[in-house]
Amino acid sequence: MFVLHHGWRSSASRRVRLCLAEKGLKFESILVDLAKMEHHRPEYLKLNPNGVIPLLILPDGRSLYESGTICEYLDETYPEPPLRPGDAYGRAEMRNWIRYTDERIGNLIIFNWRHSIAKVAANMTDAQLAEAMKKIPSKERQQAWLRAARQPYTPEEEDEARAKLTMMLDRMEGALGEHAWLVGDRYSLADIGIVPFVKRMSEEIIPDELSDEKHPKVAEWWRRIQARPAFKEARIESFTSTL
Amino acid sequence: MFVLHHGWRSSASRRVRLCLAEKGLKFESILVDLAKMEHHRPEYLKLNPNGVIPLLILPDGRSLYESGTICEYLDETYPEPPLRPGDAYGRAEMRNWIRYTDERIGNLIIFNWRHSIAKVAANMTDAQLAEAMKKIPSKERQQAWLRAARQPYTPEEEDEARAKLTMMLDRMEGALGEHAWLVGDRYSLADIGIVPFVKRMSEEIIPDELSDEKHPKVAEWWRRIQARPAFKEARIESFTSTL
Repeated sequence: MFVLHHGWRSSASRRVRLCLAEKGLKFESILVDLAKMEHHRPEYLKLNPNGVIPLLILPDGRSLYESGTICEYLDETYPEPPLRPGDAYGRAEMRNWIRYTDERIGNLIIFNWRHSIAKVAANMTDAQLAEAMKKIPSKERQQAWLRAARQPYTPEEEDEARAKLTMMLDRMEGALGEHAWLVGDRYSLADIGIVPFVKRMSEEIIPDELSDEKHPKVAEWWRRIQARPAFKEARIESFTSTL
Repeated sequence: MFVLHHGWRSSASRRVRLCLAEKGLKFESILVDLAKMEHHRPEYLKLNPNGVIPLLILPDGRSLYESGTICEYLDETYPEPPLRPGDAYGRAEMRNWIRYTDERIGNLIIFNWRHSIAKVAANMTDAQLAEAMKKIPSKERQQAWLRAARQPYTPEEEDEARAKLTMMLDRMEGALGEHAWLVGDRYSLADIGIVPFVKRMSEEIIPDELSDEKHPKVAEWWRRIQARPAFKEARIESFTSTL
């Protein structure tokens, strides 16, 4: 049995849950509350010194982190149904899609963290914040925490992030004009990688851009994604629900 | 025949050249001068809309970018000698090593760009700089250009970057304590990925840390790396040479 340390709203966790659901793999669910910084507690760092979620504990006790790495491992180990293109060039394109998506997470964080981490961070004292900073390994994430705590994003910054996210839809539209899924005719980890982004765009950030008028191919892709049983099973639910 | 658009000093280019050399694959070399922003010129953007190097043109005319993606494609397509672990878990570890390395490139840029990009950027007018900014896709790289142009890194920032790079050696030392290469007993893309970092650390940034006293396992690994014929063939040469 797999054990997954994750968060319901965490984009990276959502990817891994989608992958597990597509493969029909069950897991024991252990929730990690980022707003409470549970991922930086000693007991969690013992499991994952990198202090990030998701973390997948394999049946043999070994563990893996990084959503892209975890999903590709699962596809190599449990090949049915395949979630990677059948040819090396397609797999290369898939990996570049995942990387492209990863590099844009900052634009999503602006809209995601205000539901959770920002509320907690804003109430921290300077001393608490300084202490929290020490535990955050990446400079980019430190900056995101500082902004959430002390200097909320400006309307201009939010507009810029919306524009960047819209450009992702433009790029998807181009790819989907050529084939049914982001890489060729097979649903793959490239699609799974971007689902948590599109979900958030669709419900709150830029819902109009998901229309048949603005991005028809993406809109159609998004309907097909949501119709997959794995989507429901992975619980890619609304941020404003009681989840 | 492969065609490689690359730079002799570019870390990502060095990885791909190492991989090609290990595989015994020849290529036509086309140099791209980042300091002259040749990677943002229309004729290059037609080849690679992402405006990054290296870019590998395959014998069939298709192309690939992103060093990690290119190297894994090459290993899948030309499996001898293998440059990835034989098992899925090992490959997952390898991918996490590459990602770990990628995420730390900012610490290397501080010391690399002063040899090239900083000299050009500092001489730009504000208008030229603003124009250049528009062409740089990632915020992190924009920031690096701005710093290179107008606000050279402080001694404190350089110290911090040196400390972060030293931590990479610490982590390598831990991994190499268990086996001959970063992932298990096979030289892999994880090793190749970090070679451009260690090369720069060894020659200028923190050479003392590469000693048998400070990091004996890494020092031994580094000697073995440099003894490989591919290292010479890939021309991982000194930044201060006339290269």
